Parts: sequence; C-alpha cells; structure tokens
Amino acid sequence: MSEIKVITNMLKVNEEINVQNRRMLTEKGVYTINLMSAPGAGKTSILEKLISRLKGDLRIAVVEGDLYTTKDAQRIEAHGVPVVQINTEGACHLDASLIKDAIDSLNLNEIDLLIIENIGNLVCPAEFEVGEDIKVMVSSTTEGNDKPLKYPLMYEKSSAIILNKIDLTEFTNFDKQEFYKDVKSINADAVVFETSCTKDSGIDEFCLWVKNKIDENKAKGC
Amino acid sequence: MSEIKVITNMLKVNEEINVQNRRMLTEKGVYTINLMSAPGAGKTSILEKLISRLKGDLRIAVVEGDLYTTKDAQRIEAHGVPVVQINTEGACHLDASLIKDAIDSLNLNEIDLLIIENIGNLVCPAEFEVGEDIKVMVSSTTEGNDKPLKYPLMYEKSSAIILNKIDLTEFTNFDKQEFYKDVKSINADAVVFETSCTKDSGIDEFCLWVKNKIDENKAKGC
Repeated sequence: MSEIKVITNMLKVNEEINVQNRRMLTEKGVYTINLMSAPGAGKTSILEKLISRLKGDLRIAVVEGDLYTTKDAQRIEAHGVPVVQINTEGACHLDASLIKDAIDSLNLNEIDLLIIENIGNLVCPAEFEVGEDIKVMVSSTTEGNDKPLKYPLMYEKSSAIILNKIDLTEFTNFDKQEFYKDVKSINADAVVFETSCTKDSGIDEFCLWVKNKIDENKAKGC
Repeated sequence: MSEIKVITNMLKVNEEINVQNRRMLTEKGVYTINLMSAPGAGKTSILEKLISRLKGDLRIAVVEGDLYTTKDAQRIEAHGVPVVQINTEGACHLDASLIKDAIDSLNLNEIDLLIIENIGNLVCPAEFEVGEDIKVMVSSTTEGNDKPLKYPLMYEKSSAIILNKIDLTEFTNFDKQEFYKDVKSINADAVVFETSCTKDSGIDEFCLWVKNKIDENKAKGC
C-alpha cells in the first residue's frame, strides 16, 4: 500500500469529477469562480460587496465552504441570493465531489454566476479544481508582503488577486513594491485589485472585471 | 486500497515518531513548543521578540517550517540562535518525521527551549503532534473574531493563545467579547495573551509564562 499511489488516485478521481462539474456548469451557462484565501483575508466581505453591486444584473448563487459553522452562509443569505453550505468537518479544502453535491442542490437554470467560497487556507484549496472557470484569491495587507513566495501555488493559479485591507497598509510593514514584484515573478498575467471593504474602495473595479469575464465567456459561446 | 486506512496509517506512523521525538527531547531536557497560526498572524515576529528577551536566560533553538523560502529562518538567524529550516515543498503541515530529521541535526545538549514554527495554516498543523511539550497558537485581530468556532481544533489543543495585532483592533470589526466567549467554550484552560509586536506590548507577559512553564517542567523532573 503506497501513500503516493493513494494521493495520485485521489487527485485523479477529483479531476474526473472536476471535468463533469465543469461540463454541467458550462452547459447551463453558469460562470463559476473559486474564491480562495488565508483565514480572515476578507473573502466573505468581498462577496457581500460584489453581491450588493451585481445582483441587479446577474443571477448569483454561492457555495460556502467551512470546516464548521454556518456563519458565512448566514451573512450571504441576508443578501437574498441562493446559498449552499458545505461543512467539511475538519477537512482543509473543498474538492470536486463536495461541489458536485452542492450544485446538484441548486437550480442551475437560474444562475449566471456561481461563487464558491473555499476553506480559509493558503495551501490545499489551490491543489483541487472543483469545476470552476477561474480562481480568484484574496490576499490582505495585514498578512505581510512575503506570502506570494511562501505560498506560490495559489498566486500562480489565480486569474485575479485581490489585495484587501488596503486601508490598513499604513499601520503595517507591508511593502507594496515587494508584493507586486513577487506576484509578477510567479504570475505575470494575474490582475491585481487593491480593495478595502471597510472604506468600500476598489470593489467597483473588481466587479466590472468579473462582469467583463462573464461577457467575454458568453461571446465565446461558452 | 482504502484512503481512510492510509490516513489512519499515516497518523499511526506519525504518533510513533512523535513519541520517539518526545522521549529524546525530554531525556535531553529540551522544552519544546509547537507554534502555530494562520499565515501572517505574526508567529515569526513573536518569536523574534521572545528570543531577544529570553536568550540571556535560556539556550534557545528554532525549527522553521515553510513550504518554500528561507525568509523566516534568516530573520531568526539574525538573532544569533541555532535554526533549522524545513521546506515542505508544498505540504501543508509539519509532521513528526520532518521534526525528527531537524532535531537530529541540532545539538540537544545545548538547548533549553526549542520552538517549532509550523506552516501558516489554521487546519492541518493541529492534527499532527511532532514531539512537543505544548502547543501555542497565534491568532490576530485582523483575521476576525469568528475563527475559534470555524477552526476549533487548534484553539482546543493550544495551552496558550496569543491574540496579536491588538493595536489594530480599533480599525477592524473584531469583537473581543465574542472572541473570549468562543475561546472559553472550546478551551477553558487556555491562557490568552494580548500582544502587539509593533507596539512591543504583552510580550513580557508571554515570555514570563513560557519561563514559568519551563521551570515547572524542571521541578517535575521532566
């Protein structure tokens, strides 16, 4: 019995279900974002802001991943969009099989944009595709500017990187120049948005980018 | 081939090496702390402050865990204490086997206090004992007060919880009362220290507590 063989097998099974999820979501015209970050970087706050701005134009649904509690799902539900809570009971990431169960419980005919809020963890969520069109990550100034090089996979795989809590920069030793240099060295194509949920800044730019991604996708006939 | 069987097996092997590490460290009179947190909560900063204060009284050594880079080990090395860097190359936690290799490369006869800085991750590090006497975790106000209930295992297993970045509380919606209530519900025995590395506050209290733990341990003949 080999551990490596089991891990390879887990990733293979995940990849098969990822492809099925992706096909199903694409067929139904659902654009899907896998939203990732460290704990407390501000995923749910960004999501609340995005829903408030875009729910008039787009039919949005959310899958909330947490080890325990339904705290985030309750916050999202208050914005009047469909939300499915996944509790992993201790597991450190969402996988394609969990997302399959979640999308089976949603009416995909009535969704334009599905956002999957992953477990707060800078490592494991980046290793598992779950059926998404793109990955977006939230980094925050209070975590320090050294995170891209220390946790490169998530930065590498994200189409957009939201640098949140930008209003707190002055109270930290966060070096913006170093951050951008390191991000560029890992992923030159990523778009970076500087946001503050407290000050409500930078969110419009991110929402416009999301809307454009959906329009481009539709124009391609996906 | 069963995945559950492999995971059970991994934990069993880890537990065997944990016991060996623990025995070795105890025999040599090395008090060992497993220091854990989310990415960017301030483990390395706390460690730098602790070393500056205690290195006159205690012979300190550090094991630095990171996926990639030697950034943190370089910061610790500048304080003139022995440090061993472990790069997990993508893995999300330290395990007993990695720590065995690290302690084999240290002269345990010349160490009173060994601090193992784990991977920045609120989930997986709490599941693997590595030979430590106690676990200490760093939480930070900028992560939000909802983390204890969302990631209970680390809070449950820690003898001390350092609430860092206390100077930034006023710029966040961190609810201290809720935080203490939730911590108490998970782990009524944990000691909580409020610290700010920027303002250099609360660190003396934590260092005194560490020193007392070591003294108590010696008095017990461990």
